[in-house]
Amino acid sequence: MSTSSSFIQGQLSPDLTQPLPGSRKAYLCGSRADIQVPVRQVLASDGGGQVLVNLYDSSGPFTDTPVDIRVGLAPLRESWITERGDTEPLAGVSSDFARQMAEETATMPRFASRRPLRRAKAGKRVTQLHYAQAGIITPEMEYIAIRENIGLEQARTEQRHRGQDFGATIPNAITPEFVRREVAEGRAIIPANINHPEAEPMIIGRNFRVKVNANIGNSSVSSGVDEEVEKLIWATRWGADTVMDLSTGRNIHHIREWIVRNSPVPIGTVPIYQALEKTKGIAEDLTWELFRDTLIEQAEQGVDYFTIHAGVRLAFVPLTVDRVTGIVSRGGAIMAKWCLAHHQESFLYQHFREICEICAAYDVSLSLGDGLRPGSIADANDEAQFAELRTLGELTKIAWEYDVQVMIEGPGHVPMQLIKENMDEQLKHCHGAPFYTLGPLTTDIAPGYDHITSGIGAALIGWFGCAMLCYVTPKEHLGLPNKDDVKEGLIAYRIAAHAADLAKGHPAAQAWDNALSRARFEFRWEDQFNLGLDPVRAREYHDETIPSPAGKVA
Amino acid sequence: MSTSSSFIQGQLSPDLTQPLPGSRKAYLCGSRADIQVPVRQVLASDGGGQVLVNLYDSSGPFTDTPVDIRVGLAPLRESWITERGDTEPLAGVSSDFARQMAEETATMPRFASRRPLRRAKAGKRVTQLHYAQAGIITPEMEYIAIRENIGLEQARTEQRHRGQDFGATIPNAITPEFVRREVAEGRAIIPANINHPEAEPMIIGRNFRVKVNANIGNSSVSSGVDEEVEKLIWATRWGADTVMDLSTGRNIHHIREWIVRNSPVPIGTVPIYQALEKTKGIAEDLTWELFRDTLIEQAEQGVDYFTIHAGVRLAFVPLTVDRVTGIVSRGGAIMAKWCLAHHQESFLYQHFREICEICAAYDVSLSLGDGLRPGSIADANDEAQFAELRTLGELTKIAWEYDVQVMIEGPGHVPMQLIKENMDEQLKHCHGAPFYTLGPLTTDIAPGYDHITSGIGAALIGWFGCAMLCYVTPKEHLGLPNKDDVKEGLIAYRIAAHAADLAKGHPAAQAWDNALSRARFEFRWEDQFNLGLDPVRAREYHDETIPSPAGKVA
Repeated sequence: MSTSSSFIQGQLSPDLTQPLPGSRKAYLCGSRADIQVPVRQVLASDGGGQVLVNLYDSSGPFTDTPVDIRVGLAPLRESWITERGDTEPLAGVSSDFARQMAEETATMPRFASRRPLRRAKAGKRVTQLHYAQAGIITPEMEYIAIRENIGLEQARTEQRHRGQDFGATIPNAITPEFVRREVAEGRAIIPANINHPEAEPMIIGRNFRVKVNANIGNSSVSSGVDEEVEKLIWATRWGADTVMDLSTGRNIHHIREWIVRNSPVPIGTVPIYQALEKTKGIAEDLTWELFRDTLIEQAEQGVDYFTIHAGVRLAFVPLTVDRVTGIVSRGGAIMAKWCLAHHQESFLYQHFREICEICAAYDVSLSLGDGLRPGSIADANDEAQFAELRTLGELTKIAWEYDVQVMIEGPGHVPMQLIKENMDEQLKHCHGAPFYTLGPLTTDIAPGYDHITSGIGAALIGWFGCAMLCYVTPKEHLGLPNKDDVKEGLIAYRIAAHAADLAKGHPAAQAWDNALSRARFEFRWEDQFNLGLDPVRAREYHDETIPSPAGKVA
Repeated sequence: MSTSSSFIQGQLSPDLTQPLPGSRKAYLCGSRADIQVPVRQVLASDGGGQVLVNLYDSSGPFTDTPVDIRVGLAPLRESWITERGDTEPLAGVSSDFARQMAEETATMPRFASRRPLRRAKAGKRVTQLHYAQAGIITPEMEYIAIRENIGLEQARTEQRHRGQDFGATIPNAITPEFVRREVAEGRAIIPANINHPEAEPMIIGRNFRVKVNANIGNSSVSSGVDEEVEKLIWATRWGADTVMDLSTGRNIHHIREWIVRNSPVPIGTVPIYQALEKTKGIAEDLTWELFRDTLIEQAEQGVDYFTIHAGVRLAFVPLTVDRVTGIVSRGGAIMAKWCLAHHQESFLYQHFREICEICAAYDVSLSLGDGLRPGSIADANDEAQFAELRTLGELTKIAWEYDVQVMIEGPGHVPMQLIKENMDEQLKHCHGAPFYTLGPLTTDIAPGYDHITSGIGAALIGWFGCAMLCYVTPKEHLGLPNKDDVKEGLIAYRIAAHAADLAKGHPAAQAWDNALSRARFEFRWEDQFNLGLDPVRAREYHDETIPSPAGKVA
């Protein structure tokens, strides 16, 4: 086994483990000792005294305790999962592919110290939706209630603007019961695979803070395990609430294991990408059996949500022929190709109930993919897109029959005046399931700056009710994002998400702006840097023109 | 006289003079030989053939013909101005300060080859508004009609989305008569000082393309004439439709001369900044006489619009006491200090009619400054801000009595849900005069990224009807922008302006997106780069991961 860098030795570089300047990690306790909710605390001077500003923190334990990535993160949810008594350990992996992988001679570093796999006992559904509908408040729900309230106590003493919520109903404080109810009604999901006990619970729903997803993933062109784990940690450091691993090429099974074991946030995947690797890239050779095996393989690794393009139906494919940019979703293109080659209905649509059964046995959430999303301004809001959206609404109801948590993916490229229609149609046809969009980009003219073209659209749709925003990096359409691009994309999207929280009137949102603005007005430069989304950049820019320490207090 | 760099020798660096990759400058002819409207032409292959994509071009002649900055640009409007017969050349400068400057021993390079100054003949008003109301279509208006229609012919064969215009009335094609009427009714302005004949005419109004302003300017801390002229050219290269020179410190009179003589776009200033230099920074020592002399000085140099904070009335100052960030506009703070020190009504308000008389004699447009704009999310849309806005509406009517062109400045820092109210109040109280906002920033939490926090707000308010967006660079709140920052700010704002044009349904806007999207879908990488806002960055990002030429055609 060759290890290509010191990283696989378990050492993390300091830029991943140093706390943000002026910030420290603290924990808020719940009703039981093992509910410990992380918070980014900034100590600022305000009104002559010292104040602690508490901020939501997605970065995991990396800045707090030394993490050996060969061992992975502590399984904080393990006891919650086992206590429920509805799962059982497995003797080994259930998928054929994972078995092959275990037997294969290693060509890359393997993640070694695996805990036993779990699956639902026969006849059990082990999803947070199932518990919620049964009236059970899980520790995950309590954890999330505490987490969503971060900063709220402080915010109570602050003036804030009234929001415009477009029908969202964000309460003044989030109770565990409120979390349960939102999940029970399908308006929010808690992506939390029982095989990913390392993840810190979080929620995606219109009546909670707007969340951000970052895509990472190697490709046949570049990067290996070290770089991908580093990108994962880097992404959570800069505010990724979930991370999608879109790796392709060989070794993705092993890379995914490294990622899941070290991820403090839910991990999403697009299983059809891996299935296609198994058919050596030939879409026509995909089969339900192969896809099913891939779902089980990934569910047992701990993937928290699957993007599945089950709404790309045979009949919708011709709707895309007059488009400027045809089908740009990779998953959508794969399924369209399969449907046309076989002239058959999509096997994802045909076998959707079996997909739900697998998800229910591991609590994998479904992210119903928008395979026909527009790839250009010209194609926004067309019939292909909305026909698929209506199908996703049908599938949502089926998933709910199996107690499977669902969110709905959305576009893409949409000019500003057409964004609201996307949210309205999603609300109308998808029964309140959370919306999760890629941008949308509000213009196509700026390759190299699509974090900005899409940050505008993301802020808008977040305001209108979209629950999670999939980031876009400056490299979109041009190449694979490196670490800097991941950070640029995340900061743009944290801005969009927070701007949306402010606009919706989230009760805790404005206190952060106020704290920073007071620092700014009082020329407390250190506080202004430290309270920022990116203290490092703020200081660096300041010091370029006014480097003296005197320049920071006056 | 010492010249600090080769730049003052008249040589421009290649990064200012090389055409954008794949682009060339062409000119569209008007009804007379001296109406030559510049256009950025990109040659792309599309549908098997070659197509020319015509784009609006603010960059001036620098990439086309060698410019010796010691000589300045050709005075393209000179004959139009003299033909009107309502102005006369002056024997010398009229302001005391300019006279002093001329007599002073040079401590820095002086711009030498000055043409004769002009002023309106006694009793004449030489503004575009005056001509428009008299029913005259000036060459400037015809020029603008051609310019605003760039790309329209091509766009006619393209599908496009219907816009949502919030009451704007953008015609299918802009006629010279339409330009005249919009100016006559005060809904648009053509900043075009008779002493700045070098500028290419452009228009600022809700029924035209959304425009972008870039602020440049030296300060006591850094930079001199060479750097500022370079920034000016750089800013127009990346899409600045107007440039404000916010220089402070000594030498600003001379730096301004260099800037105006080399500027293909209208130049705006905040004259109170220079007036304050003359009182050595003591606001209390400002007088109307000093200010008046400064206006004449700048009007004769050719400044196209003045930001004047005449709406900061004595009675409004106490409205800011409970704010989180008080008064953050520099001009506003200066005037508030003066009012409180003297316990008198602002001399700008008191002498507003005399200000208008000066403006009418040179066609300087007024940009009525928002001295009480909010400096934080917390302070958005408060009574201080709106009281001032209503006053600006009163002053608009007075300016129009003198045939002076007017636009209204707006905030600042505003959360998304409160942006529309700004536009609505402005429309309601300012009689349709164009709105010109700084951002607004939609959150305060991201120092170092305020081009993005504000790009979101700029796109929104542009959509709602704001006519010009004042850019914000990544250095906002932290330091002075360098060249890179100017470019980053401009690209973000060009994105915002174009996203707004798309959303309003500007008939020529979407053709650009379509051309780029087709190139993208057909993997015509060179076309995708060349059609982008920033071809250089797009190629660079692409080549980072896929550098081979083969990667550009497949």
